[in-house]
Amino acid sequence: MSADPAWIAADWGSSHLRLWLMDEDGGVLERRQSDRGASALDPDGFGAALTGLLGADRPGAGLVICCGMAGAREGWAEAPHAAVPCPPLSAAGAAVVFVDGLRVHLLPGLKQAAPADVMRGEETQIAGVLADAPDFDGVLCLPGTHTKWAHVSAGEVVSFRTFMTGELFALLTERSVLRHAMGSGGWDEAAFAAALDRAMSGPAGVAADLFAIRAEDLLQGLPPGAARARASGLLIGLELAAARPYWLGRDIRIVGEAGIAAAYRAALAAQGVPAATVPAETATLAGLVAAHARIATDAP
Amino acid sequence: MSADPAWIAADWGSSHLRLWLMDEDGGVLERRQSDRGASALDPDGFGAALTGLLGADRPGAGLVICCGMAGAREGWAEAPHAAVPCPPLSAAGAAVVFVDGLRVHLLPGLKQAAPADVMRGEETQIAGVLADAPDFDGVLCLPGTHTKWAHVSAGEVVSFRTFMTGELFALLTERSVLRHAMGSGGWDEAAFAAALDRAMSGPAGVAADLFAIRAEDLLQGLPPGAARARASGLLIGLELAAARPYWLGRDIRIVGEAGIAAAYRAALAAQGVPAATVPAETATLAGLVAAHARIATDAP
Repeated sequence: MSADPAWIAADWGSSHLRLWLMDEDGGVLERRQSDRGASALDPDGFGAALTGLLGADRPGAGLVICCGMAGAREGWAEAPHAAVPCPPLSAAGAAVVFVDGLRVHLLPGLKQAAPADVMRGEETQIAGVLADAPDFDGVLCLPGTHTKWAHVSAGEVVSFRTFMTGELFALLTERSVLRHAMGSGGWDEAAFAAALDRAMSGPAGVAADLFAIRAEDLLQGLPPGAARARASGLLIGLELAAARPYWLGRDIRIVGEAGIAAAYRAALAAQGVPAATVPAETATLAGLVAAHARIATDAP
Repeated sequence: MSADPAWIAADWGSSHLRLWLMDEDGGVLERRQSDRGASALDPDGFGAALTGLLGADRPGAGLVICCGMAGAREGWAEAPHAAVPCPPLSAAGAAVVFVDGLRVHLLPGLKQAAPADVMRGEETQIAGVLADAPDFDGVLCLPGTHTKWAHVSAGEVVSFRTFMTGELFALLTERSVLRHAMGSGGWDEAAFAAALDRAMSGPAGVAADLFAIRAEDLLQGLPPGAARARASGLLIGLELAAARPYWLGRDIRIVGEAGIAAAYRAALAAQGVPAATVPAETATLAGLVAAHARIATDAP
């Protein structure tokens, strides 16, 4: 490539490492990705994974700004969680590691004392949304393996709550007896809507309603797209029933990948709640750019 | 051994094969077990697994009576489910296979049209309880991988409902992010009781309350015995909240292995519901003896 990057933005999750080679103005010169996620690396493997993906393309002042699990206790170096209520990006608190001429800032996550909760990575997406809308007062829904609902006001994360919905869906559809009823694809909108309704009106029954997917498939045959959408609708319905204080009467934005964001958007629309959607990667990158502006300003 | 067995009782579940060499009077001459469960076998592997475990000890008339997944569609030969309401043991309906001089009766399971549900193996345990208490009118709770609640009256299974509680517990404690908080042992009774209460009074929140186990472990450290008991209490509480129509104001008996039966017994006791416990294997064997009496009488 022609121009050297000014700095490097990095999103280092459990299962992936994404890098963006950035220019001075927050523009992206190039995007790279590897599957060397944090959960696949020992603490001393992070440096080589980063420099390997960067190759000869080194940023001007060596600056890398990184969010995600690389900053977890079992990651590269621990950037301790900041306690809410607080802004999503702390001025202090980043762990800084040096490797091969690079200065890597690992951004801290957020924690909440009661109910006990943690996030790491989503705080940067929240900062990205706030960079575009500093006066946003409402709730962000960040669906994923561990879906977060975050109440944001006056530039701070006031409170948040994590639901294991995505991980439960993956375990149930891939590893439980329900896997026999799931094909590789397909999605039945009506089955999703019916299951969502059922779980919201009777959330306690979800462990039985899930088994009924298996039973109905055995007894009557059930199209895989209906089975998959029903499992999703039941789990999201269980979540929405509990997250009602977060979404009722609030300004809601969904930050997520296209498929899961669409499911949550449909689920909220069924409750009469409109929600704008921000692509996950857009929010992450905007948050890293905001962190860069802060760190570049603070630098000696 | 000295005496030849009169017949063979068999419990062929997904993960195990148990045989009892029986005398004419329903007494057990010998018990054997192997790990050649139905889910590990192709249809043509069942015969060899059975004769291999029996060895030279062949029953007088070659009769084997078998409950469990060997009679499933993907098992040895399908014994189609009988539809409730019906007695737990159908006079007809067994699939009969012949192998190496043996005549093997595979007992049918039960099915329910709405809500769609199935059982295979538990019907024999229910028959075992009824063999001892023919006038039992109440509800049997059969905890396990897929916990069943069965309403029994006038010698019939009237209705039943399956909860994926046991499988969810295994997936969450062994394969989800919660596994980091679980040690190999330990059990905190008070944590179980508190989590049970919490899930029963707010069942919708269980996907968030589960994640809080992980968060609390990260932030404050949580003894493994408390983490494990909390996960169990949340999942059993979710189930009890939905199964209330089954246990409220009914005569309850729990049929299960000692550990899980004790957890359900404690959970029901906390609701003011006393429940007698029948060991799972006692019920299975009594049901197979009842089936033998029926089949021996019906035989030409």
